[in-house]
Amino acid sequence: MSTTAQSEPVLIAGQWRPASLDTANTNVFQATDPSNMELLSPVFPVSSWQDCDEALNAAAAAYAELRQLPRERIAAFLEAFADRIDAAKDRLVAAANRETGLPASPRLADVELPRTTNQLRLAAAACRSGDWAAATIDSKAGIRSCYQSLGPICVFGPNNFPFAFGSLSGGDFAAAIAAGNPVIGKANSSHPETTKIFAEEAFAALQATDLPTATVQLIYRLNHADGERLVADPRVGATGYTGSRGAGLALKAAADRAGKPIYLELSSVNPVAILPGAMVERGDAIIKDFVGSALMGTGQFCTSPGIILMTKGEDADKFVEAVSAAYQAATPGTLLSPAVTKSLGAGIQTLRDAGAELVCGGGDPVEGRCARSNTLLKTTGGKFLSDPETFQTEAFGNASMVVVADDIDQLTQVIDSLEGNLTGCIYSANDGSDDAVYPQVAFALEPKVGRILNDKMPTGVAVSPAMNHGGPYPSTGHPGFTAVGIPAALPRFAKLTCFDAVRPARLPELLQDKNPTGSTWRFIDGQWSQADV
Amino acid sequence: MSTTAQSEPVLIAGQWRPASLDTANTNVFQATDPSNMELLSPVFPVSSWQDCDEALNAAAAAYAELRQLPRERIAAFLEAFADRIDAAKDRLVAAANRETGLPASPRLADVELPRTTNQLRLAAAACRSGDWAAATIDSKAGIRSCYQSLGPICVFGPNNFPFAFGSLSGGDFAAAIAAGNPVIGKANSSHPETTKIFAEEAFAALQATDLPTATVQLIYRLNHADGERLVADPRVGATGYTGSRGAGLALKAAADRAGKPIYLELSSVNPVAILPGAMVERGDAIIKDFVGSALMGTGQFCTSPGIILMTKGEDADKFVEAVSAAYQAATPGTLLSPAVTKSLGAGIQTLRDAGAELVCGGGDPVEGRCARSNTLLKTTGGKFLSDPETFQTEAFGNASMVVVADDIDQLTQVIDSLEGNLTGCIYSANDGSDDAVYPQVAFALEPKVGRILNDKMPTGVAVSPAMNHGGPYPSTGHPGFTAVGIPAALPRFAKLTCFDAVRPARLPELLQDKNPTGSTWRFIDGQWSQADV
Repeated sequence: MSTTAQSEPVLIAGQWRPASLDTANTNVFQATDPSNMELLSPVFPVSSWQDCDEALNAAAAAYAELRQLPRERIAAFLEAFADRIDAAKDRLVAAANRETGLPASPRLADVELPRTTNQLRLAAAACRSGDWAAATIDSKAGIRSCYQSLGPICVFGPNNFPFAFGSLSGGDFAAAIAAGNPVIGKANSSHPETTKIFAEEAFAALQATDLPTATVQLIYRLNHADGERLVADPRVGATGYTGSRGAGLALKAAADRAGKPIYLELSSVNPVAILPGAMVERGDAIIKDFVGSALMGTGQFCTSPGIILMTKGEDADKFVEAVSAAYQAATPGTLLSPAVTKSLGAGIQTLRDAGAELVCGGGDPVEGRCARSNTLLKTTGGKFLSDPETFQTEAFGNASMVVVADDIDQLTQVIDSLEGNLTGCIYSANDGSDDAVYPQVAFALEPKVGRILNDKMPTGVAVSPAMNHGGPYPSTGHPGFTAVGIPAALPRFAKLTCFDAVRPARLPELLQDKNPTGSTWRFIDGQWSQADV
Repeated sequence: MSTTAQSEPVLIAGQWRPASLDTANTNVFQATDPSNMELLSPVFPVSSWQDCDEALNAAAAAYAELRQLPRERIAAFLEAFADRIDAAKDRLVAAANRETGLPASPRLADVELPRTTNQLRLAAAACRSGDWAAATIDSKAGIRSCYQSLGPICVFGPNNFPFAFGSLSGGDFAAAIAAGNPVIGKANSSHPETTKIFAEEAFAALQATDLPTATVQLIYRLNHADGERLVADPRVGATGYTGSRGAGLALKAAADRAGKPIYLELSSVNPVAILPGAMVERGDAIIKDFVGSALMGTGQFCTSPGIILMTKGEDADKFVEAVSAAYQAATPGTLLSPAVTKSLGAGIQTLRDAGAELVCGGGDPVEGRCARSNTLLKTTGGKFLSDPETFQTEAFGNASMVVVADDIDQLTQVIDSLEGNLTGCIYSANDGSDDAVYPQVAFALEPKVGRILNDKMPTGVAVSPAMNHGGPYPSTGHPGFTAVGIPAALPRFAKLTCFDAVRPARLPELLQDKNPTGSTWRFIDGQWSQADV
């Protein structure tokens, strides 16, 4: 084991302490400021398996404590943490802006941070109410069941939402904790300092609310083999991962082999079909809507609309022309990191190599920062269908591709050829002129996506109990779960446990005759009810 | 492609037709009557990939039709099928008795068959009500979501419940159909004729209710590579498998690689802890309870109690002695097949090789039929802990092992060393004398099992909304799902779909403002309700 005082400490077992470094590989790293491509000064460690092993032991011990605590205690922690995040807003926004290039305001300070604390507070409310556990009581048979906590959860957050999907602050974190589990966060390498601040605030909130201090732990980076070992470890309950497909599928393979649940959110091109009548009726408004959505956050949203489907004709030409003009007029936004800059260039090149026509941009690098020109590509439905796999390559960032089909039948075939996606949008005319073809397009699109939208772009993901931020493989790893939406996101991190003839006093509070809160929803003898049994 | 008129036809694409045989391997098989070890006369085909491919195409087409039908039509089919099963009772019972050796009465005719038709009728009711889809409506945000059908489901049924878990009649079948999916059944090789009769009755019921005839298809057997290819095929929605761990994990690996959900029910030793006070208080009753449960169905239940945990002393000695006497006095039941007979012998040998002491039996084969002597093994907590993996070897059949721990702490350590199981039982005294130790034992047992029982054996699996016939890996493939319990078993075969700003008339019926049945439970703006929006 080798340690160094030069790199930032990890948070393991309730201690900020030097990492046990991965001696076989490069064992420290620095993030880059994408606005000037300069390395940021803090040096972060790449942990060895020793750190994982200690974190897993501490998490297992914390889990045993958490299982015995009233839900109220966990809810209080989530709220205290949310309050501390509000108080640390300036530091968090400054760090995340430095590390990701995302605008301090409104994006980080006024949109993403409030969304994050709102999620944590909704998770606290879900934890307190217990509705999420779907307590089910068969009073005649003497059988009662509910979801219960699962064990230590590993969270691997993405690069594009340093707060709202952050390893130690985002939706997976909030859901895992609210379901009663400790979390081991693996920071995203593009914003380690931001993650460290969240860990500091979470740690302080744990101490203030007297929860086991190993309920939240932080490791910055691991080599791939140790990451795969971590998600497959017997001490782990499950894993939540949001990020690139390659790394995600490697973790999935390891977790699957060990029979450990892993929830993935991978890539998605989010098809948008614009039906002919809609373009006739309100083409300009749709173009504006599209450009705003596609360039928002420099296109670095999981739900960014990457492929637009239209039928050929004047309106399609007009769409391409107007979007091209808008793309050329807009200053390219800063991308999250050198890695994103590189992969965006590669994605554009793959699409061009496959035969997509360049309309504008081309992904030329912008001098002095992580950025590429806004890029619009175009292809035909026939070309797309000749190699749908390649034409679905995600070019994550400010690049979009219009697919112009011969007619609605071909447009539908293009949809049939798509992999699973998070979202699918259909714009149609309000005057009924698209109503004859809408059903055919929607019928094809529904099985391909987790969320289907009408007349709006997919980039807003409301935190609603009815939201599904999920979708068929490979947009996620399982079509039945959502990563956003409270309480819907909680059961991912739970096991179903049935109590058969268990004596009344020994039942968990949620399954006892008396409704534990007076208002928890339970399914009692075939009826949803807030009453006592 | 090679076909033969000599083997039984498969049911593919609405036709009973000769199988396309797997020419590279042994391509026909016969079942064995375990009561006399003679081959039964019908010859069944091993299908080639050609049959799978045609079944998958037909299932995909049937699925497109099913998606457009009212739920009522599917419910009517399930009920018509149940009625036909009742009418075909004598043929089904005779065939299953011949092929599995399970007693015609009461087991097959009076217990398993009524359970099977009851499940199908409950599934029809669940389909009709739509409660299972968990329709969730956020009226303010304009977001609505529910579970929807997923696509063709492959069902691989087990050997031990030819009706209630049968590929084309059991719980997975009922859940998959009720959720709106077609089923491709792979018969269990031990009872192909029974499965054929179910396919015939299902086919007739499909015709009578005018559902797509490829909603139910039957293949008898596949080579392993084709089985793995089947569950990973892009046309498949998901797979339900109940059976041996080896074959199940091979299918899981294939499905996982393709990102296809697969629900497995594999092996389970179902630990039963008998606390000291319970033995003092009512030892004789517990012994009787245990022997009845352990030898029921010749021990061939997924939830058969394989491991009994006690603390050392006179009562443990008495338990072992009395169970041994009862095992020796009872005529060994007939096992399901030559394969089960072989694996039971191997399981007993593995436990003995690991150091378990033979109390009675030893698994000696019984002349002239598939049967082995009732076997009781014994070991100490210390020995168990020296090699917990081997001591958890499932000896599926009429064999049990008592683990005698030094004290409650060691008994708890044994529980801590267990893999995931379907069930775990704790017997404790009614006079409170075990109350001091119960919490410790239950705390250890809960995370290891899907269902925890007090003072009863695990072999009864009530079809209740509160049942969990599931458990942590490797008893199943995911700790959040149950294979028994309607409607709880349905969402395994569904995808979550969200409708965001979708125009009212285009919403699925379950998500429209008007409650589609007048009584469907929906989660509307944070309240479970049967009302309209």
